Amino acid sequence: MVRIGVDVGGTSTKIGVVDEEGRILSHGSVDTRTDLPFSEQIAQMAACAKEVLQRSGHTVDEVASIGAGVPGVADPKTGVVVFCTNLGWHNVPFRTEFQKYFNTPIFIDNDATVAGLAESVAGVSKGADSSVFITLGTGVGGGIIINGKIWSGAHGVGSEIGHMILELDGEPCTCGNHGCVERYCSATAIIRKARELLLRHPDSLILEKVDGDPSKINARTVIDCAREGDAIALKVFRWYVKNLAQAIASIIHFLDPEVIVLGGGVCNAGAFLLDAVREEVPHYILFKNLPYSEIRLAELGSDAGMIGAAMLS
Amino acid sequence: MVRIGVDVGGTSTKIGVVDEEGRILSHGSVDTRTDLPFSEQIAQMAACAKEVLQRSGHTVDEVASIGAGVPGVADPKTGVVVFCTNLGWHNVPFRTEFQKYFNTPIFIDNDATVAGLAESVAGVSKGADSSVFITLGTGVGGGIIINGKIWSGAHGVGSEIGHMILELDGEPCTCGNHGCVERYCSATAIIRKARELLLRHPDSLILEKVDGDPSKINARTVIDCAREGDAIALKVFRWYVKNLAQAIASIIHFLDPEVIVLGGGVCNAGAFLLDAVREEVPHYILFKNLPYSEIRLAELGSDAGMIGAAMLS
Repeated sequence: MVRIGVDVGGTSTKIGVVDEEGRILSHGSVDTRTDLPFSEQIAQMAACAKEVLQRSGHTVDEVASIGAGVPGVADPKTGVVVFCTNLGWHNVPFRTEFQKYFNTPIFIDNDATVAGLAESVAGVSKGADSSVFITLGTGVGGGIIINGKIWSGAHGVGSEIGHMILELDGEPCTCGNHGCVERYCSATAIIRKARELLLRHPDSLILEKVDGDPSKINARTVIDCAREGDAIALKVFRWYVKNLAQAIASIIHFLDPEVIVLGGGVCNAGAFLLDAVREEVPHYILFKNLPYSEIRLAELGSDAGMIGAAMLS
Repeated sequence: MVRIGVDVGGTSTKIGVVDEEGRILSHGSVDTRTDLPFSEQIAQMAACAKEVLQRSGHTVDEVASIGAGVPGVADPKTGVVVFCTNLGWHNVPFRTEFQKYFNTPIFIDNDATVAGLAESVAGVSKGADSSVFITLGTGVGGGIIINGKIWSGAHGVGSEIGHMILELDGEPCTCGNHGCVERYCSATAIIRKARELLLRHPDSLILEKVDGDPSKINARTVIDCAREGDAIALKVFRWYVKNLAQAIASIIHFLDPEVIVLGGGVCNAGAFLLDAVREEVPHYILFKNLPYSEIRLAELGSDAGMIGAAMLS
């Protein structure tokens, strides 16, 4: 038996046929067309899924389940996407619509949750009974695994790590609150802080790398410059690591998972980031002499969405 | 069958015989004697337990289990109290020592965790599949129930809500960190903020109630004055409620439990506090139109420690 994983994204939706161990057998993608009605978007995804399935050499009868990860709030019980701002979806019956094309069990959940599940089934947190996955991208998302299973909360609105509060009356967040983790731990935060410091330090290597155009700065530029020893980039990097370490300490003090997995675009910095975070976290740990969550980098990269979605049950 | 609950405290240890529904049948207490060796402290507790058991009309053969809640870090697997600062306990074999007097299964856990369990078995969160208990006292403690069971973390160091970070580089905490929840949401925080404001506003009712002696201020004085409409006390109270609401929002965004239970001394303020918190929390909630954790006041009061300890398994 195989499973189909649908990783719904704002730009494109990736679809993979995955075996029981979480290995991708074949995959494809379809552009996200927010200009089309919901039912037609699903029709396109389903057609792509059938084509990818055929390429894998399996038939519809061999599909145990289909799962989808969506960048928004999904209700795993009803199969309804409550909302998904990027796609303009509000209370759309994802499961019911998809079942018009596939007569199999269909599951949905939040995309960061699904990526966390993938890492715990086939990735870096495999074998851990509990883990918290943190995506460090444009925003900050999260996925929680407890007793080997997804925990999305009693009302399905949990694991929104990006909107835990890290600073009372802090930076304004897109969500309307102030001081959310996302304002201090996302790629966006790195860019904001770099631009802020560059106003006073225009001689930084960062500006040189973007031909003097601050609008071209991304997190990678800043981290690359930090790695090369640029003082301003290092200042931004250390500020970022300090923020992230405190957010991680909050998660440890609250939930104390076996493993904390860091994923998302910022983690392309690899060991340079991981080593710095591992060095910083102990400063904020309450019980200095007791073991605490191991911090690791995600290893499934952009495949995590498909794999985790396929593994939903 | 009955169970014995031992609520170990810095001043006294309360011991109760509890039935399967969490009702206390008889109880007693013994002074905490930190001047005595650990083994003698346990001998005193065991003697008190035997006396309380006799008064309940039950025999040792009818004791299904004994549980203890300790104000520190306990390892439920080994039965060892890792440390308990108030009592000067460090890696003491609680279970082994207590079993010299009772040949029954003996369980231990953190006191706030145990109080949370009590509320979920016999109190205000009874029937809820998931709950987070927050004690608002001198410090801030926590207990987490997930799928009807205690969650203390993979390494037993979780549910330390008081040391989640609420403000980057904020108020210095007794733990060595800065900006911990405890600095903003404890009774101590109320007292600190009141004293700070009274320096500029000595005409407040608060100072009148303590005969002009700021060292006599406690959380109750401040909240009583707020209830009476004193402007400075109200300012402290609103500041406190705003902090607490943001800490609660972080818990909702992260774990999204079915119920959040507020306990501890500050909650003697009753509906005056609860109503204010319930009104403030929605300002910080991410998904304004979706249901979220219900916020309730603990109802077992100081009995929660004994009841929850007895219910450990």
